[in-house]
Amino acid sequence: MSGTQRQMKMVGFLQAQNCSIAPGSWRHPAAATDFTTPEYFQRLGRVMEDGKFHMAFFDDRLAMPDIFDNDYREAVANGVRVVKMDPMTIVTMIGAATGRLGLGVTYSTTYYEPFHVARLFGTLDLMTGGRAAWNVVTSLNNSEAANFGRTEHLAHDLRYERADEFMEVVLGLWDSWEDGALVIDKESGRFADPDKVHALHHQGKYFTARGPLPVPRSPQGHPVLIQAGQSGRGRQFAGRWGEVIFVVYPNLAAGQKQYGELKAAVAAAGRDPDEVNVCPACYVCVADSQSAAEEKREYIRALARPVDAVVLLSEALNFDFGSKDMDSEFTDEELKKLSWSGFRERVIALSGKPNPTVRDFVHFSGRGTIGEFPIFCGTPKAVADQMEEWFTARACDGFVLAATHSPGAFEDFARYVVPELQRRGLYHKDYAGATLRENLGLPRPAVGDWRKTQLRQAS
Amino acid sequence: MSGTQRQMKMVGFLQAQNCSIAPGSWRHPAAATDFTTPEYFQRLGRVMEDGKFHMAFFDDRLAMPDIFDNDYREAVANGVRVVKMDPMTIVTMIGAATGRLGLGVTYSTTYYEPFHVARLFGTLDLMTGGRAAWNVVTSLNNSEAANFGRTEHLAHDLRYERADEFMEVVLGLWDSWEDGALVIDKESGRFADPDKVHALHHQGKYFTARGPLPVPRSPQGHPVLIQAGQSGRGRQFAGRWGEVIFVVYPNLAAGQKQYGELKAAVAAAGRDPDEVNVCPACYVCVADSQSAAEEKREYIRALARPVDAVVLLSEALNFDFGSKDMDSEFTDEELKKLSWSGFRERVIALSGKPNPTVRDFVHFSGRGTIGEFPIFCGTPKAVADQMEEWFTARACDGFVLAATHSPGAFEDFARYVVPELQRRGLYHKDYAGATLRENLGLPRPAVGDWRKTQLRQAS
Repeated sequence: MSGTQRQMKMVGFLQAQNCSIAPGSWRHPAAATDFTTPEYFQRLGRVMEDGKFHMAFFDDRLAMPDIFDNDYREAVANGVRVVKMDPMTIVTMIGAATGRLGLGVTYSTTYYEPFHVARLFGTLDLMTGGRAAWNVVTSLNNSEAANFGRTEHLAHDLRYERADEFMEVVLGLWDSWEDGALVIDKESGRFADPDKVHALHHQGKYFTARGPLPVPRSPQGHPVLIQAGQSGRGRQFAGRWGEVIFVVYPNLAAGQKQYGELKAAVAAAGRDPDEVNVCPACYVCVADSQSAAEEKREYIRALARPVDAVVLLSEALNFDFGSKDMDSEFTDEELKKLSWSGFRERVIALSGKPNPTVRDFVHFSGRGTIGEFPIFCGTPKAVADQMEEWFTARACDGFVLAATHSPGAFEDFARYVVPELQRRGLYHKDYAGATLRENLGLPRPAVGDWRKTQLRQAS
Repeated sequence: MSGTQRQMKMVGFLQAQNCSIAPGSWRHPAAATDFTTPEYFQRLGRVMEDGKFHMAFFDDRLAMPDIFDNDYREAVANGVRVVKMDPMTIVTMIGAATGRLGLGVTYSTTYYEPFHVARLFGTLDLMTGGRAAWNVVTSLNNSEAANFGRTEHLAHDLRYERADEFMEVVLGLWDSWEDGALVIDKESGRFADPDKVHALHHQGKYFTARGPLPVPRSPQGHPVLIQAGQSGRGRQFAGRWGEVIFVVYPNLAAGQKQYGELKAAVAAAGRDPDEVNVCPACYVCVADSQSAAEEKREYIRALARPVDAVVLLSEALNFDFGSKDMDSEFTDEELKKLSWSGFRERVIALSGKPNPTVRDFVHFSGRGTIGEFPIFCGTPKAVADQMEEWFTARACDGFVLAATHSPGAFEDFARYVVPELQRRGLYHKDYAGATLRENLGLPRPAVGDWRKTQLRQAS
């Protein structure tokens, strides 16, 4: 393994719920069912750390699916992501059972205050020795809004305007304590240097936060920022703030194109594109032979039920798919109502229809099945070949591994694929350091660094 | 030890900060300084579990002290509670290092949404096997308001009105999943019984929350509720909701009176007074001889500095104590501005002055020193004698042990005092069960129990 060879970053995609991102996964005979216990999640963390994953990463949703048929009953009966626990508590439990694995958590800028988020993630970063990451999302779902006393979600562009200000406050608060501010001299009674502790005095359009944050600076400076914006305004946001960018590509060619666009957005924001890791979601089905791997994949595919797809499409697009027949086209007006523009555009592009039907959405989105993300399938060598191709063709800097079933998918990857990638020098043999930034090859930010970038970009 | 003898409940009082509740404690030579690491807190948890404490309990404050002199500099320089990390992350770390200790966390009803609190504590309860407790507080501090985009705190009675509705929503959401709702039959694909999962459809004056909460019912039903209201409206609130009531008594006689009043408030709310544990705060200084214990106490007392008191009084009462000379009296108008009426009344009563001075507040509140709470001081036998007196005289059902220094105060108590209390049959020899409710002797609530109580009280 060459010390300078570019190596892929590996992120395990976790859900604090009763299934993996593939809702049918709970029906898999080998799926663990103890998902309401810490043991379930600590086991996943240990498997990932055995496989030298850079990070485990939790999505989130602040509601039970209830847009389909305007009810939650079908979702509950079929287990379509109806358990959705608080990911912060759970990731902390994983942190207690691991020593190097990065720990990423999704937290909405729509329903929380920046002071709360800054303190929460700042503390997680201290309590895990500098392994925390925050996946910044803007919420877009009426089920969530109904649990937080909002009647409707914010318009798409306003959400990002609010999110930009949210980031400025959080990063500003994370700069409250300089390195070396703590003195802790018991004899003299001098605890800290007030010249190295800073208030923020932020008064913006959406938020007020005086500061200082009562959380000292962490070993990695501050938590790593994860972002998932792929469409116009979202890509601009990701380019400005994201350090790990989570993407969904339908195929390699689309990936290469979008990878270039994302890196350009990073550069346009005055940042170094090499300091941003773009990681597409994928599934892996690996076995000792190609045919066994394919059989595995087809078995898992068959776990999905039609109800999974329509329940999840209703949530993802904020539209009751139970209100239309399978073969009725979406009108232009209905298409405009779909809250996730990148998702909508992908289905229009893949179907080749300006007005796709419900069936088109089910088929081309792959929602509710493992068809949602590319599937790398085959022997360890064949899987490594496909991942190497994506990586060396500059479609990505690493991957976000979604679980076909849990914990099996992570165990298979760690045991079969990681050694093969390591042999090729494409995957680190061990963690480079103690903090997530060290392991991702990201520089440790000094107080005020992000403001300098913003100024550079503005000038 | 008789199986039916009444036994005291023991709660360890923790702060996610750079000192114990006694700000001078960080200056103690034996104070641990690794308070930004999980090891610091896990060590405390293990010490408490060795001493069979029923619960560890974190206070919280969503700001750095900055009301004194309208600045945070003095607080930072002197280490007056200027580190204040997120307690939920930290208590989860303690949960990972312990197996029986209850885990209580303060969370404000003023700055968070009930759906968030219900999900967060519901998840903590699952991840700790039913050991979670929530200390319900209403925030009253302008430093906090300035970090959450509010310019002023709510008026006292409105805060409680809002908090009552907050409780109804949280308890309603905790009733989303009945026991036995989870089926998890992989063969048939039936995940859960929708007839046993309930939405809330709450639309009140302050909150909207549709539900259902996507978190199944925990082994102890739902988290234990801690409350600290002592004055009129606060006592009514505590009587209605609290299961552990945290109080501060100046002395035994006052304790007996207030204990009776609190139990009456519980009965007035239609609840069983025996199912509520009233626990006053105390310090303990214990050593092999009375004189050694007293020396210990005086050494600790001398760690306090005048700046500690005035910084903390400013925070507690939401008034800049730097704006007045030490011997100037508070005018009636100034007294009205003090945001914590129970605290103000206590100083007026103890000083015997309708208009106390700054010095009176410092002296009679004990704020910033270990004089804030009663100190049980002496040999193990002498300390046990004092605690037994309070307990058998029906001033309390247990204690909240504040740390003169950390971890030493908890170690001393576990090693010196617990065995003596156990010999007397006043303290359990081991945990009665796995959940906090079992260990506190509280019944496991069924879905809807709290509503029945409310109806009983209303009729």
